[in-house]
Amino acid sequence: MEILKFENGFKITYKGIDLISHSKDKPFMYVGTGIADYNMYRGNFKISDYLVEKIALLDYEIEQENNKVDIKLSRNNICYVNLCIEENKSNLLVNFTDYSRNINRIWIRIAAESDEHVYGCGEQFSYFDLRGKKFPLFTTEQGVGRNKKTLITALADIYDDAGGDYYSTFYPQPTFISNKKYFCHVDESTYMNFDFTNENYHELEIWNVPNRIYFGAENNYKILLQNLTQLLGRQTVLPDWVIEGICLGIQGGTDVVKGKVERALKSGIKVTGVWCQDWEGKRITSFGKRLMWNWIWDKNLYPGLDKYIKELNEKGIKFLGYINPYLATDGSLYKEAAEKGYIVKRNDGSEYVIDAGEFYVGIVDLTNPDAFNWYKGIIKKYMIDFGISGWMADFGEYLPIDVKLYNNISGEKMHNLWPVLWAKVNREAIEEAGKTEEIIFFMRAGYSGCGRYNLITWAGDQNVDWSIDDGLASVIVAALSLGMSGMGIHHSDIGGYTTLFDMKRSKELLLRWTDFAAFTPIMRTHEGNRPADNWQFDSDEETLKHFERMTKIHSMLKPYIKEALIENANYGIPVMRPLFLNYEEDKNLYDLKYEYMLGDDLIVAPVYESSKSSWKAYLPRDKWVHLWSKNEYDGGYIEVESPIGYPPVFYKKNSKYEELFKNISMI
Amino acid sequence: MEILKFENGFKITYKGIDLISHSKDKPFMYVGTGIADYNMYRGNFKISDYLVEKIALLDYEIEQENNKVDIKLSRNNICYVNLCIEENKSNLLVNFTDYSRNINRIWIRIAAESDEHVYGCGEQFSYFDLRGKKFPLFTTEQGVGRNKKTLITALADIYDDAGGDYYSTFYPQPTFISNKKYFCHVDESTYMNFDFTNENYHELEIWNVPNRIYFGAENNYKILLQNLTQLLGRQTVLPDWVIEGICLGIQGGTDVVKGKVERALKSGIKVTGVWCQDWEGKRITSFGKRLMWNWIWDKNLYPGLDKYIKELNEKGIKFLGYINPYLATDGSLYKEAAEKGYIVKRNDGSEYVIDAGEFYVGIVDLTNPDAFNWYKGIIKKYMIDFGISGWMADFGEYLPIDVKLYNNISGEKMHNLWPVLWAKVNREAIEEAGKTEEIIFFMRAGYSGCGRYNLITWAGDQNVDWSIDDGLASVIVAALSLGMSGMGIHHSDIGGYTTLFDMKRSKELLLRWTDFAAFTPIMRTHEGNRPADNWQFDSDEETLKHFERMTKIHSMLKPYIKEALIENANYGIPVMRPLFLNYEEDKNLYDLKYEYMLGDDLIVAPVYESSKSSWKAYLPRDKWVHLWSKNEYDGGYIEVESPIGYPPVFYKKNSKYEELFKNISMI
Repeated sequence: MEILKFENGFKITYKGIDLISHSKDKPFMYVGTGIADYNMYRGNFKISDYLVEKIALLDYEIEQENNKVDIKLSRNNICYVNLCIEENKSNLLVNFTDYSRNINRIWIRIAAESDEHVYGCGEQFSYFDLRGKKFPLFTTEQGVGRNKKTLITALADIYDDAGGDYYSTFYPQPTFISNKKYFCHVDESTYMNFDFTNENYHELEIWNVPNRIYFGAENNYKILLQNLTQLLGRQTVLPDWVIEGICLGIQGGTDVVKGKVERALKSGIKVTGVWCQDWEGKRITSFGKRLMWNWIWDKNLYPGLDKYIKELNEKGIKFLGYINPYLATDGSLYKEAAEKGYIVKRNDGSEYVIDAGEFYVGIVDLTNPDAFNWYKGIIKKYMIDFGISGWMADFGEYLPIDVKLYNNISGEKMHNLWPVLWAKVNREAIEEAGKTEEIIFFMRAGYSGCGRYNLITWAGDQNVDWSIDDGLASVIVAALSLGMSGMGIHHSDIGGYTTLFDMKRSKELLLRWTDFAAFTPIMRTHEGNRPADNWQFDSDEETLKHFERMTKIHSMLKPYIKEALIENANYGIPVMRPLFLNYEEDKNLYDLKYEYMLGDDLIVAPVYESSKSSWKAYLPRDKWVHLWSKNEYDGGYIEVESPIGYPPVFYKKNSKYEELFKNISMI
Repeated sequence: MEILKFENGFKITYKGIDLISHSKDKPFMYVGTGIADYNMYRGNFKISDYLVEKIALLDYEIEQENNKVDIKLSRNNICYVNLCIEENKSNLLVNFTDYSRNINRIWIRIAAESDEHVYGCGEQFSYFDLRGKKFPLFTTEQGVGRNKKTLITALADIYDDAGGDYYSTFYPQPTFISNKKYFCHVDESTYMNFDFTNENYHELEIWNVPNRIYFGAENNYKILLQNLTQLLGRQTVLPDWVIEGICLGIQGGTDVVKGKVERALKSGIKVTGVWCQDWEGKRITSFGKRLMWNWIWDKNLYPGLDKYIKELNEKGIKFLGYINPYLATDGSLYKEAAEKGYIVKRNDGSEYVIDAGEFYVGIVDLTNPDAFNWYKGIIKKYMIDFGISGWMADFGEYLPIDVKLYNNISGEKMHNLWPVLWAKVNREAIEEAGKTEEIIFFMRAGYSGCGRYNLITWAGDQNVDWSIDDGLASVIVAALSLGMSGMGIHHSDIGGYTTLFDMKRSKELLLRWTDFAAFTPIMRTHEGNRPADNWQFDSDEETLKHFERMTKIHSMLKPYIKEALIENANYGIPVMRPLFLNYEEDKNLYDLKYEYMLGDDLIVAPVYESSKSSWKAYLPRDKWVHLWSKNEYDGGYIEVESPIGYPPVFYKKNSKYEELFKNISMI
């Protein structure tokens, strides 16, 4: 850290990077008071702020001592904030050592350059390079459509306040990585808004005085990610079975599932898991098929499931289920939790029952260690002991703000942390059962810290369409941005999920999404919320054949993907990587958001538009071999034939996996 | 004015009404700095503000002397604002005598009571009582749909950024009237936002230090309106011909117009004017029929119009035209204006050409006295001298912000004043021609001061549908709110105008709107932007008969309406009046927004929903006679039969016009 003082100002650089620049004219910190209004409808939040005051901290006193700087920030002789900035082995830490008690808003400006790029902020679906936009960071439903200029978004807004916007995400995170090769992470959980619209600074608006801000700076992106994930936590390597084939999302009861599995196996599909989210029962609402939200085997819908799980296991197929952190008020578990006082409460002491879409649920108060352990016990007893090898640990975004929690911390502070608690429950249940090598779970919600507990992220609820902001394309952006935030294992519902209005999943979409998923760490299908409206893996013979071929390809990639998973576990290098991680000198790569590297030797450019027979891609300087045609490229913009089943994938010539890639190309 | 001082605070009351209440805990003024972003697309503005600073002015010094108070407002020993509050014969004036030069935002809190009602803010279409909402005050397109929860609004937003919102209005005004019987008017033209959502105060956000704030307080509403219009200006009495029948909006050239007028006259319709907006030529765009925007008789479309106008006049029928403050770049007048330097410019000195919807226009710089006079001359030469007796003086809302004006005042300050300049040009043209007793014009755009120049307001572009926020119902709210802002002559396009998407004007809508218009000061039809999609006055015999009857009724009301017009001219009592003006003790009336009094003796409750055979109305305590059935009511909630042609209208028993009303009821 270097401090440069000049008349009426100072500058702080870290490893040669300007981070803070202060002068009377251009102060780097503002403080104030706001009154927030949070309005939740089924996980969609409308958040607004009435700003009572906002004061520029023009005046300062600065004292330097070894690797520490103390800064007092004031205005008209009133001191509002004391900072202590110190450097440790890995990071620069900005500590808020004291501050005026009546401020609850803070704006910090980090020095920026006009041509700078920034990435991260958790899972972002619309923008990979975040420059030029603002990103509110608050875990919510991701929205249906996510673009106010589309009809789907408008319809979802009109009928259900559910359209979302470009920044709506299940998994926000107050972390960004700049192409100046530093990261910035804010250790705080209240609502924030990261504003990257200004030429000379990034402005971080934080609705609380944060615990601390971390900066890391390294010579290359991979070491930077290693530093970041050292701080935030890394994922473990997944059990082998997860990458040995596809998890088929099937619903409808034992007989239906048996029939569909038989058909899949007969067609030669490499099935590694059968995922039945309705294992605990279903309900039908106007939205479509929903679940019972009472996490106990539904013996009526799934007679003999216990035996069937064993049968599947004998065939080398795992059985996966579903759970979320809520309990339907009409179920036995809710009754038990409410009696024990384990349901999140309103300030008046009553259970805080929320609308989950034509049925009502309570939230288990995971800040109460007894409730936390009780829920962990539910997972162990009803899922793990029952023989379930994995599950979707759904939701996590619905904690209202006006709650009374066991730990007495406000809803404003706990809302974003709920996914972390939720991940922790699931992780500990598996650990305590001694099954970390066998059992998985996957989540959509997240926040800083989830990377430490959550094993796998899935991209949530895409539309069953080609939309840029909420379809296949958006999943690529999501994987890349989450990877730059320290969560490196990502996948999606093959074919998307949300089936509303006129949307129906087409055969073409399902096939293209399968092509893409084969080149991600995990293949898993979902029937969607209106299964009958959607094309499914078994809708015709051609589709079954397609799944046979793509799951074979995916399973052949196992050693290659496994190496990437190990790299992710050891160093925090995401399995799906932005190209600039390996080719940082190529300026074109910093704008690329729909192309990625799977590991270090494959470049994947998924076809995310309909009716395309060829596809344009960009390759960095190197020798690249088109997986199917074997044509070789030296880099630059290229175009290749891209029929269904032959996604634009390129391997690095002379890769140690060249033989494997050649074998795949012959499938 | 009374000043009550107490420890750490003070209170200012005026004629017994608490207006300002200040304490260290609850200061009444905040100041700050903002950076605004104005984004215009075809008259629709997206406006956002980045608040750099906002400071509560906690500290004060107060000095009283006779009828004057000087207040210095400061924070931490820095004085930001000096006020001088003084009382004159009619008003309390808050003068900003000095202020810190780097502030451009000010928030003033006016003391409020929790059950208070407020009205005004110019022409508001969705809310009459403004309490509970915020009202940005900036003249813009009114929007298509004006309700983010309707599909029409969403479609307009998606395809044209044109949906609008509940506050979008052509005619805003920073004036409100409280039921504490005071008015508040801010003498300033920059963007403001009046926030009536708080229980204990109304917060006026002003994007500049205002010239002055006026308060008036009186014992009753009529005298309060008299005081307000004394300040802001009143309208004159209209020429008699305006209220003697209907102005038929017809387009399509001399032959078409002749044919339609013949048919109307044969059907016995009382035609007082023929309004041909395309007298200067038409163009077809994807929106529909648009005009040439070059204000000279189109001899091709209207051969022999000069003679035809005389023929019409001989039959006692006036001819009306159309003009707006813009010139199409493809026209001769634009060429002349540009050569003379009369077109509003960009900062780089080039003409500021704006998109008017598939054609481009320049704005005549009305701040340049030469340009102002030149444009006045255009009106005199091409319209008045040509024999035109009236016109729609359309638009006025499209002045961009980033302009370079002749008077060197910023676009931010001049934008809202453009309608006033536009009204002034039209008014002076008529005055200078010596035709104030004969010629009229009507405008949709407005701002404080328009009431002084503009003769008639029309409600702009309603949808041809029954929507609450943009259909027939919205016009009633518009008339009432504008009346409470000091503009008392209001009417609307019979049947609405905007015909987009699936909207088509139904016969029922046209007939119900005609029923309503008969009981407003002016009846005028419009074919809409897609005439062929809309039901018109001559679409069938039944409709012609309906127009015959309703125009007869309207013309019979002439003496009654004339008296109301005189009252409006002399005292500023609007022709269409909220019921509480006459029955202030009745609390139910303060929430009534779809019912009005025409003059003092008629109550009108228009049917604004489709498929209704009866209608509910509320009557204040008095003897009321239902116009058609002659049933008498003593007040309260009632329901009457309401077939088409028999709108719910009630007259006051023993009115001096009782004979007239009885005659009407026999039509």
